[in-house]
Amino acid sequence: MLTVARACPKISPASHFYKLPRSGPRARTFATEVKPPKKSLLQRAITVAKYTGYVAASSVVGVGVFTAGIFIHDAFTYTERHIDRVPVNPLALHLERGGKKNLPIARILVDDEEDDEMKKLVDKPKLVIIGGGWGAMGVLQTLHPGDYHVTVISGETFTTFTPLLPSAAVGTVQFRSLIEPIRKIIARLRGHFVSGKAVDISMHERLVEVETTSMGGQKQNLYIPYDKLIIAVGSTSSTHGVPGLDHCFQLKTIGDARLIRRRILDNFEAASLPTTSSEERKRLLSFVVCGGGPTGVETAAEIFDFCQEDIMNYFPKICREDVSIHVIQSRGHILNTYSEAISNYAEAKFKRDGVNLITNARVAGVTPDSVIYSSHGPDGKMEQHTIPTNFTLWSTGIAMNPFAKRVTDLLPNQVHKKAIEVDAHLRVKGSPLGDIYAVGDCATIETSLVSHFMDFVEEADQDKNGKIDFNEWEVMVARIKKTIPMAEDHVSEAREIFQMYDTNGDNSLELNELVRLLDDLGNKITSLPATAQVASQQGKYIGKKLNKLARQRSVLQANELPDTPDEAIIGPFRYFHLGSLAYIGNAAVFDLGKYSFMGGLAAMYAWRSVYWNEQVSTRTRALLMIDWIIRGIWGRDLSRL
Amino acid sequence: MLTVARACPKISPASHFYKLPRSGPRARTFATEVKPPKKSLLQRAITVAKYTGYVAASSVVGVGVFTAGIFIHDAFTYTERHIDRVPVNPLALHLERGGKKNLPIARILVDDEEDDEMKKLVDKPKLVIIGGGWGAMGVLQTLHPGDYHVTVISGETFTTFTPLLPSAAVGTVQFRSLIEPIRKIIARLRGHFVSGKAVDISMHERLVEVETTSMGGQKQNLYIPYDKLIIAVGSTSSTHGVPGLDHCFQLKTIGDARLIRRRILDNFEAASLPTTSSEERKRLLSFVVCGGGPTGVETAAEIFDFCQEDIMNYFPKICREDVSIHVIQSRGHILNTYSEAISNYAEAKFKRDGVNLITNARVAGVTPDSVIYSSHGPDGKMEQHTIPTNFTLWSTGIAMNPFAKRVTDLLPNQVHKKAIEVDAHLRVKGSPLGDIYAVGDCATIETSLVSHFMDFVEEADQDKNGKIDFNEWEVMVARIKKTIPMAEDHVSEAREIFQMYDTNGDNSLELNELVRLLDDLGNKITSLPATAQVASQQGKYIGKKLNKLARQRSVLQANELPDTPDEAIIGPFRYFHLGSLAYIGNAAVFDLGKYSFMGGLAAMYAWRSVYWNEQVSTRTRALLMIDWIIRGIWGRDLSRL
Repeated sequence: MLTVARACPKISPASHFYKLPRSGPRARTFATEVKPPKKSLLQRAITVAKYTGYVAASSVVGVGVFTAGIFIHDAFTYTERHIDRVPVNPLALHLERGGKKNLPIARILVDDEEDDEMKKLVDKPKLVIIGGGWGAMGVLQTLHPGDYHVTVISGETFTTFTPLLPSAAVGTVQFRSLIEPIRKIIARLRGHFVSGKAVDISMHERLVEVETTSMGGQKQNLYIPYDKLIIAVGSTSSTHGVPGLDHCFQLKTIGDARLIRRRILDNFEAASLPTTSSEERKRLLSFVVCGGGPTGVETAAEIFDFCQEDIMNYFPKICREDVSIHVIQSRGHILNTYSEAISNYAEAKFKRDGVNLITNARVAGVTPDSVIYSSHGPDGKMEQHTIPTNFTLWSTGIAMNPFAKRVTDLLPNQVHKKAIEVDAHLRVKGSPLGDIYAVGDCATIETSLVSHFMDFVEEADQDKNGKIDFNEWEVMVARIKKTIPMAEDHVSEAREIFQMYDTNGDNSLELNELVRLLDDLGNKITSLPATAQVASQQGKYIGKKLNKLARQRSVLQANELPDTPDEAIIGPFRYFHLGSLAYIGNAAVFDLGKYSFMGGLAAMYAWRSVYWNEQVSTRTRALLMIDWIIRGIWGRDLSRL
Repeated sequence: MLTVARACPKISPASHFYKLPRSGPRARTFATEVKPPKKSLLQRAITVAKYTGYVAASSVVGVGVFTAGIFIHDAFTYTERHIDRVPVNPLALHLERGGKKNLPIARILVDDEEDDEMKKLVDKPKLVIIGGGWGAMGVLQTLHPGDYHVTVISGETFTTFTPLLPSAAVGTVQFRSLIEPIRKIIARLRGHFVSGKAVDISMHERLVEVETTSMGGQKQNLYIPYDKLIIAVGSTSSTHGVPGLDHCFQLKTIGDARLIRRRILDNFEAASLPTTSSEERKRLLSFVVCGGGPTGVETAAEIFDFCQEDIMNYFPKICREDVSIHVIQSRGHILNTYSEAISNYAEAKFKRDGVNLITNARVAGVTPDSVIYSSHGPDGKMEQHTIPTNFTLWSTGIAMNPFAKRVTDLLPNQVHKKAIEVDAHLRVKGSPLGDIYAVGDCATIETSLVSHFMDFVEEADQDKNGKIDFNEWEVMVARIKKTIPMAEDHVSEAREIFQMYDTNGDNSLELNELVRLLDDLGNKITSLPATAQVASQQGKYIGKKLNKLARQRSVLQANELPDTPDEAIIGPFRYFHLGSLAYIGNAAVFDLGKYSFMGGLAAMYAWRSVYWNEQVSTRTRALLMIDWIIRGIWGRDLSRL
């Protein structure tokens, strides 16, 4: 305050008017004209310095005020409030048993009656969410409080910002900056959290079986009842049938990242022991990444950064010299789902950094101390190569989580091998309609048009002649778009398709022609990728739907009507691809569909901004920003913790 | 800049002079007199708001400039520098074998010749430090660069700020905020780090045997040669012969803190499972701390804080209600080494918080699900009690680290059971003089005056009559003070002591009288406590000594003279007690010797400031500050990671 006040001296009008230059050539201007005296360079510099000083001083004051504010706030976070005699429903303390397996059923929870707000939720529909990843977060963040009795079941007590796992694996950001406790997220909804693993489901009783682990290590299974169930359990890594994958690291959880970080530092410490031979040092410092997708590429880039910026400064320099980083990719290029320009840019960057790119290669096996891969030799024949290594990351392909597998086993029409098949409304196919949804990596939206053949024909064949003329075809196209939005792009040229499949040229499609058409179309539709973006959008879609359902329900219940089907509430799920991005070490690439953008530091900051924006809480946002600043100033932490 | 410029609008004198109030009572003043219009409250508020705005805006500018600065700095931390062909001495790659056990000897290290600075250090005396705690840090921070070829041997690659471990154990501060990589600390000295465990020593060959673990898990032992060795290995926990201590947690390392944090969250998660019985919930939420010293008290206080501030908000409230915290202390009061006022204050605080203090009790055993202790019943008889619990912290007493044990076993005159005995110059008693020092918890300074009896008499008995008269006694007192500074306080009343032991009143002490005097005096001296403060001061003392030795050496070597003994370089080690402090939950206590200070938030901030100041690096200082702010705003992280 004081400082700024000084910056604005009270200018007395008189003194301004009659300011007399005391000497020098300017004295001449006296009484002849009043013009502002020209400032010398020195004076200007002083002025600049003054104002800079003001800004700096004000900043200090501002920061001081901020700090004081924090301290004052801090003082109020310490309370001496006492609680006793929390109201608990006795039924919550003695669970009734039941269900197919006669297990305890958690119909009432210990905190269901602890305050008035909670009591109001007891009679609301029970929404159970299995999993705590992107899909679950999408739902939780979109739901309005007060509409559902929410329970989240997850083995991990926190949600993870997975896209930054490669950064965390080398210590660019801290593990705790990527996670947010689920309990804090559900607090807004006054939801419940059960630490456990869903293992089975009884759909007609609407019970999920959850395996919990008591402190002694014994398992205790129980049932959690639901009215609406959302399966968001994610996926596990696919082995592709490669032997020895248990010697590999994966990078799907914070736990994985922690193991990787530990191993990297272990390797460097072992490499710098006096007794380590040159050969062994080279093996210890050889890092192999199997898979040239974003995770693999980003991990390779982060390891490179770490060696370049931190190892170089604090370990014997020979350790930096002996580092080798290898990326084994089965396709011709890394980042092959991105635009070609991006692949090329990333490959050029890696080449400059000395990262060894091995494309068109197949990993044949992994042993504790090497990776074996085969690729075409100069004569075109397959050759086998071995890379001695003490670090192999497996980051390619996904497989089904055991609970997802169990769900598909229970439903006869679930035939997809890698995920639970859902319809365009994300309802699990074959389950009681509107009871169970699946989102994210564990779900795949059906792309088969043929399976809807009868419905399509029934609606479109208005003259019931068993043939589809062009007008009827247009009706059918509308229906196709509505049923499976992902088919949209493929039916946009309705006339061309019609003519192509109208082989006998009678201006109508016979049923056999139609089957072929639908089959071909279905095959053209690519399923959505297993990305955070898809899971998050699906979760939000479900959240919105549940909000709408809740609003309608109050009306319907008043009139004693059953729930409306999803179709009447909200359209099918539509995915909007916002673009893909990847960090490639001191540079980043963006694939925004039609446009690509790539570059050095500026792109890297853009990449950071995007991720920063997507954080689940202000807390992790602050932590991430701090991590990046800390890294900038002091480098990464080298502690093997 | 722009903002501040706006803060000083160019006031046209005319407009100022002839400003016309448009309406209202002030219109009356027009043309009658020109006086500055009195400001209304609103106007004043506007002015205040304006200036506040200026400060805020300037702060934003300042913070903006700061951020920009960081980004610019950041840009320069990314380099594309390449290194190849690092010069390595072939002898470092093929270690010669030797020593008693014919192990590889690391005389030359791989980074010894990597640049000119390193090459200069090769011929300097080899200083080897075993351990990476407070003692080691004291040495490393005091040493001047360029005088010694420094090697640090430690199992952990980082140093830990141990006084905040209780805070870290509940997540008030993060683990990584308490640690600093040793490699970063020794970088200033261009030192070397060997990740391993010292297991043996060959004093006449000046070799330390270190056990390292290669990545396969095999052990590889090697010798590290030294000219000066500093043993700073710390201590382990004492079991006091209590059965079942393997069911207890300790709190000496970050690893311990991590296990505790995990267990606390495990307990709360298990306690809130629907199937957990009331009885089991109470057991899971019963936290027992054995030991009422600072570590025990602080841990109990932190657990209380955590329950009060975080658990209360995010877990079922019954979990908060069922929490019980117990502190079992063998003495009559907790914090019994502090002043009585402090003990009372802490006890009153704990009572208010509902922490169960059990004093004058002895822990009889620990089982996986309970702690058994005995204390005097109302009839004075010993009674046994059992506390069901799933968390027991053992924080009382220290025992000897295996390497310290090995050293004392090798030296015949080492008889102390809990630590390596050193003389007042911190030289290990019985080892080649000036070769080996020991500091911190693993060392204890000799307090026996009798063992110096012959030296004392020889110097003091100037008339060689076998008796010590008062003048001679004064000489001896000077010598005692010099040899064992800790005896200082006990010999300050020289005449009283002399008269007390001069039993036959002949104004002189016979030798038998003198022995009794020295024996009694020695027993009065209390050894230094096993605290960070002592270790740190000892380390710094050694660092200073080594600096002085190095300065002298250059002179001595020029004249081909051997090293001066320590006595000629620097006086014996003197401990300056700067006070003790402890956090007791939302309040803190300070024992500054003559003064005590205790209180709530203000004391807590003072407590934080002290610890903040003592940090080993600016980095951890920043991290700690951030942690405290983060906790203030968002509370502790509840993630079970």
